Amino acid sequence: MDKVKIGIIGIGNMGTGHAKNLLEGKVEELELCAVADTKEARRTFAKENFPSSIVIFEDGDKLIESGVCEAVLIATQHYEHPRLVIKALEHGLHVLSEKPAGVYTLQVREMNEVAQKQDRVFAMMFNQRTNHVYRKMHELVHGGTLGKIKRVNWIVTDWYRTQSYYDSGGWRATWDGEGGGVLLNQCPHNLDLLQWICGMPSKVMAFCHNGKWHNIEVEDDVTAYLEYSNGATGVFVTTTADAPGTNRFEITLEKGKLVCENDKLTLYQLEVSEREHCFTAEEGFAQPKGHFVEIETDGLNPQHMGVLKAFAQRILNGTPLVAEGIEGVNGLLLSNAMHLSSWLQKPIEFPFDEKIFLEELTKLRTNSKFKKTVKEVTFNTEGTY
Amino acid sequence: MDKVKIGIIGIGNMGTGHAKNLLEGKVEELELCAVADTKEARRTFAKENFPSSIVIFEDGDKLIESGVCEAVLIATQHYEHPRLVIKALEHGLHVLSEKPAGVYTLQVREMNEVAQKQDRVFAMMFNQRTNHVYRKMHELVHGGTLGKIKRVNWIVTDWYRTQSYYDSGGWRATWDGEGGGVLLNQCPHNLDLLQWICGMPSKVMAFCHNGKWHNIEVEDDVTAYLEYSNGATGVFVTTTADAPGTNRFEITLEKGKLVCENDKLTLYQLEVSEREHCFTAEEGFAQPKGHFVEIETDGLNPQHMGVLKAFAQRILNGTPLVAEGIEGVNGLLLSNAMHLSSWLQKPIEFPFDEKIFLEELTKLRTNSKFKKTVKEVTFNTEGTY
Repeated sequence: MDKVKIGIIGIGNMGTGHAKNLLEGKVEELELCAVADTKEARRTFAKENFPSSIVIFEDGDKLIESGVCEAVLIATQHYEHPRLVIKALEHGLHVLSEKPAGVYTLQVREMNEVAQKQDRVFAMMFNQRTNHVYRKMHELVHGGTLGKIKRVNWIVTDWYRTQSYYDSGGWRATWDGEGGGVLLNQCPHNLDLLQWICGMPSKVMAFCHNGKWHNIEVEDDVTAYLEYSNGATGVFVTTTADAPGTNRFEITLEKGKLVCENDKLTLYQLEVSEREHCFTAEEGFAQPKGHFVEIETDGLNPQHMGVLKAFAQRILNGTPLVAEGIEGVNGLLLSNAMHLSSWLQKPIEFPFDEKIFLEELTKLRTNSKFKKTVKEVTFNTEGTY
Repeated sequence: MDKVKIGIIGIGNMGTGHAKNLLEGKVEELELCAVADTKEARRTFAKENFPSSIVIFEDGDKLIESGVCEAVLIATQHYEHPRLVIKALEHGLHVLSEKPAGVYTLQVREMNEVAQKQDRVFAMMFNQRTNHVYRKMHELVHGGTLGKIKRVNWIVTDWYRTQSYYDSGGWRATWDGEGGGVLLNQCPHNLDLLQWICGMPSKVMAFCHNGKWHNIEVEDDVTAYLEYSNGATGVFVTTTADAPGTNRFEITLEKGKLVCENDKLTLYQLEVSEREHCFTAEEGFAQPKGHFVEIETDGLNPQHMGVLKAFAQRILNGTPLVAEGIEGVNGLLLSNAMHLSSWLQKPIEFPFDEKIFLEELTKLRTNSKFKKTVKEVTFNTEGTY
């Protein structure tokens, strides 16, 4: 079997997990050849734990330049994603980037421009798109039989993190290191799914609270209100401080309601469009008739392995990716708009001036006086993304 | 048995329902003696359908002045509630007012001032407070063992109404007739429960959409963001256009999470406060330990009968009401703040200038150019409140 030689740039929590999976042969189309990390402790870890055949580099640039790999998986700090993606593409490598696509959209748009000029494969690690329930939601919403979306409520407060998580790395939960909190680190998956399934809103107003529940300088509590151009409204609520958290994604459409809670999907389907019923029914309180529909999914949820496998198969056989790299900008547009709305305390309409976002973010990075007490730790992240 | 002689002012949808229940002897402590309605069609209905012993008046003022009753139940259009409450109290009558307490808080504060000077019983028809699940939520939150509230999410979109509902009365869903839409007509129960169980927020920002789903001039789609003085945040989402709607009231506290969905209450209780765990746990992703707790309630849900019975018992024996009349102002403060926030497109902090609300409402009443196509109908309202 043809295998793609891949290198991993950044072997912190996520990168180490990916490396272990590849070394265990979980994606047979990929062969791990190299890793890179700017931290000496991580390189020592790699030397002690990985086979000697794995080439270890001091940073991503050297790995890219080495010619050892045909493809790279980028799992560095967020700000570095676009720069390394661009560099890898320009060196003729295929690229799979961890989420988020970057920290600010201007940077990501530049990356996308480069990607569109290259013939290399560029993919995003939106592993939640491989979950059968989200795939089914996408299929049902885009299938059209349920009509247009009227309302979206996503309460996704099950991203619990303790203070020790935030203390585990100097870059974590800082404007300069991550460029944000729960929106940039935990929610890129949800924001990508939101736009993938429901489309992009036309307006956002968000209430982000910095360090409300943890000793951090970025947001750990967000409530966002959304409006869509077809008149639908929505709410997106997230935090890293709720225990137990909730993950309930509800979409009300003209001809039914989808609710996904704790990976269980239910569909109540109407016999007639509510929009039609509303104006034809003679009874004031009469609900349109409907019933629960048994939903069948394929039950598959391959997560990272699914993204990695699709990435390799695209390179080898031209088959579809889980998520095209250039789609990463959409979820980031959502989080950037939420941040900007909260900073300026006003609603943000799409398209918005992305330069203003960058200016505000730069102010926060420059003016940060937050002092972190860091205890460097690499956690096992299994089941946390 | 001692009985309280009661009159009902306003026999539209709600008043007629109450009259029928009393005539069927469902509240043995109350004897219906009189009804009043300004509409001739309703008086004719009463003449044809009620026993001849029931005195029928042309309006509430005449009923109050007649001396026929010891108590009145006020079920007129909203704007009239405070004026009639005041008049009845000043004529020595006990008063039970339908929700909302009024349309604007200045009017309700005046009413409360009068009520506090009288020794008559003054109660609000907050029948949802009699529901065992909401009583249990109140008990659990106020009991203190779950700690402070951190987040409240109430999606209450199961107030479905068709266009024919809105067309059934000229006053319905108009600024001049009702003073609002879903917030004033359907949600007073929810807003009262919200403040009864969770306390009053310190700040509100709301997004009210007028006539989004129906041909009406007032709001039928509302998303409100709430902040509490202890740092908790919240969301309140409502509409009369979702089918099927949702009723999911979730309260996250320091030591657990309560979820009430479709009248089923679940409690997940933590062994230690999340606030303590967050700063003591060594693991970055470690959730505080907890478990689901079986909740026992008395299963009782007497609704209007419960409120009416408690009202009569208070008059006869001095026992507690379901809801004191003067508490009606709180839910109204919430809806007034939501409206005002939406009109001014800015957050409203409590206390706010209630005169500004009245000025804005008056502008809407005065400038309304909305023309209604009315087909007067009295609906059976059973199970719709």
